[in-house]
Amino acid sequence: MLKNNESTPLYEQLKKILRRQIEEGEFKADQIIPSERILCQKYHISRITVRQALSEMINEGMLYRKQGKGTYVAGRKIHQGLTRIINFARTVMDLGMRPSTKILKNEVLPTDFQMAKILDIPITSQILKLCLLGMGDGEPLVSYESSFPLSVGRKIAKEAFKREKKGLSFSTYDLYGESSRLFPGRVNQTFEATVADENLASLMHVEKGAAIFMITSVFLNTDHRPLEFRKAMYRGDRYKFYITRELSLSEIKRKGEAARIEGKNQ
Amino acid sequence: MLKNNESTPLYEQLKKILRRQIEEGEFKADQIIPSERILCQKYHISRITVRQALSEMINEGMLYRKQGKGTYVAGRKIHQGLTRIINFARTVMDLGMRPSTKILKNEVLPTDFQMAKILDIPITSQILKLCLLGMGDGEPLVSYESSFPLSVGRKIAKEAFKREKKGLSFSTYDLYGESSRLFPGRVNQTFEATVADENLASLMHVEKGAAIFMITSVFLNTDHRPLEFRKAMYRGDRYKFYITRELSLSEIKRKGEAARIEGKNQ
Repeated sequence: MLKNNESTPLYEQLKKILRRQIEEGEFKADQIIPSERILCQKYHISRITVRQALSEMINEGMLYRKQGKGTYVAGRKIHQGLTRIINFARTVMDLGMRPSTKILKNEVLPTDFQMAKILDIPITSQILKLCLLGMGDGEPLVSYESSFPLSVGRKIAKEAFKREKKGLSFSTYDLYGESSRLFPGRVNQTFEATVADENLASLMHVEKGAAIFMITSVFLNTDHRPLEFRKAMYRGDRYKFYITRELSLSEIKRKGEAARIEGKNQ
Repeated sequence: MLKNNESTPLYEQLKKILRRQIEEGEFKADQIIPSERILCQKYHISRITVRQALSEMINEGMLYRKQGKGTYVAGRKIHQGLTRIINFARTVMDLGMRPSTKILKNEVLPTDFQMAKILDIPITSQILKLCLLGMGDGEPLVSYESSFPLSVGRKIAKEAFKREKKGLSFSTYDLYGESSRLFPGRVNQTFEATVADENLASLMHVEKGAAIFMITSVFLNTDHRPLEFRKAMYRGDRYKFYITRELSLSEIKRKGEAARIEGKNQ
């Protein structure tokens, strides 16, 4: 039973109870939790209280919602390695889900100053914008927003439509060929945490304000010419990324040195 | 001027204007933007509308707030490499900020089932919990929550207090020695996006619901014995992480194979 006279708000108390039940394995990964109605009855609290608790736990990535079905435990996140690129379909299949890809946008646009700089093309040239939605069992998992120099983009888009027609699932990375001009020999990536705005929330079937893991990539060919600028938005409740690093003794020695330099500066 | 008769809410219109001004360089990184009062007057909108726009842009990581000062453009995020560990103080100093570290907690606790498993210690043994707050120019940037087997933790905590006394800044990684038993030769890390709950928000000087980049690390010594389980919560508006990867032709060939396997399965 929740305590109304405590300084901790009721929804925080409910969050604590649910969190403990998940941690202790009472509710397991990808298992549905009791409905809002049942939680109201069980803990003698209002619908608003239950909704606030669930909505915060969804945004924190502990629960997720399937539209028209209910609220589930988000334990089993998609575990994606960072040291080697594993393609989208494989990652999703390894989790026992059926992968699919939808082409959301394929447009030729004038470039802007920023994109011209990133793609190293004249400000007067055009770009091709290709937007993909990667899904698992029909639920959105990741949204890709890519910009290409026009000549590269035309080839990539053609490949995308070919695969879509065959019912294959893919990300833009799967669409590159083996010819050296089109081979992405290097990629610079940044990783950021953000939250979903209204548009992204409705696209990804999450609530506004939900956690989003954003990976921005610049793919370069073997001559270091930019091939693609891509923003990938992963659902924070469904993805985590991992890396294993070996540290060397020389590294820890360098570290010691840095610490001494800091000592002087202070 | 904002249009009241449009289907786009007023705060979304204001967000769009501010976003454009930032992208076009009218407001630069780490520059203060006009106050709420001035924005109200300039666009003839209510304080509530301005607050909603700013609060969403803060949670999305485009703006950040300095307590008692105002709202700033968050362009210049801390750019931290993932392929090599650069220590906390160096990362912050490279950005022209003064690093500092505060010890928030140093406690001996009974272990629980999960932690005993992660640290590979008996369920009956105790752990040492050490919580640190990493700051730049006195503003919280990252919160570290570490659990150690007791014998390791005592040594690490001793080092932490020694450094705190000298006014040095550090993360737990800086506290390891060179002796092989205590040297973290390997680290397994996962990266996730989440949002701040009430406690974390007040600790990190952000709003509840703000984006948080979470790195969970298990440090192992050269004999693969776990030394530390650490949860690091980075302010999403202040940090981004980067990596550069070289891709090989054999990798893209493997990729092609995977795509063919998927084709069969569908």
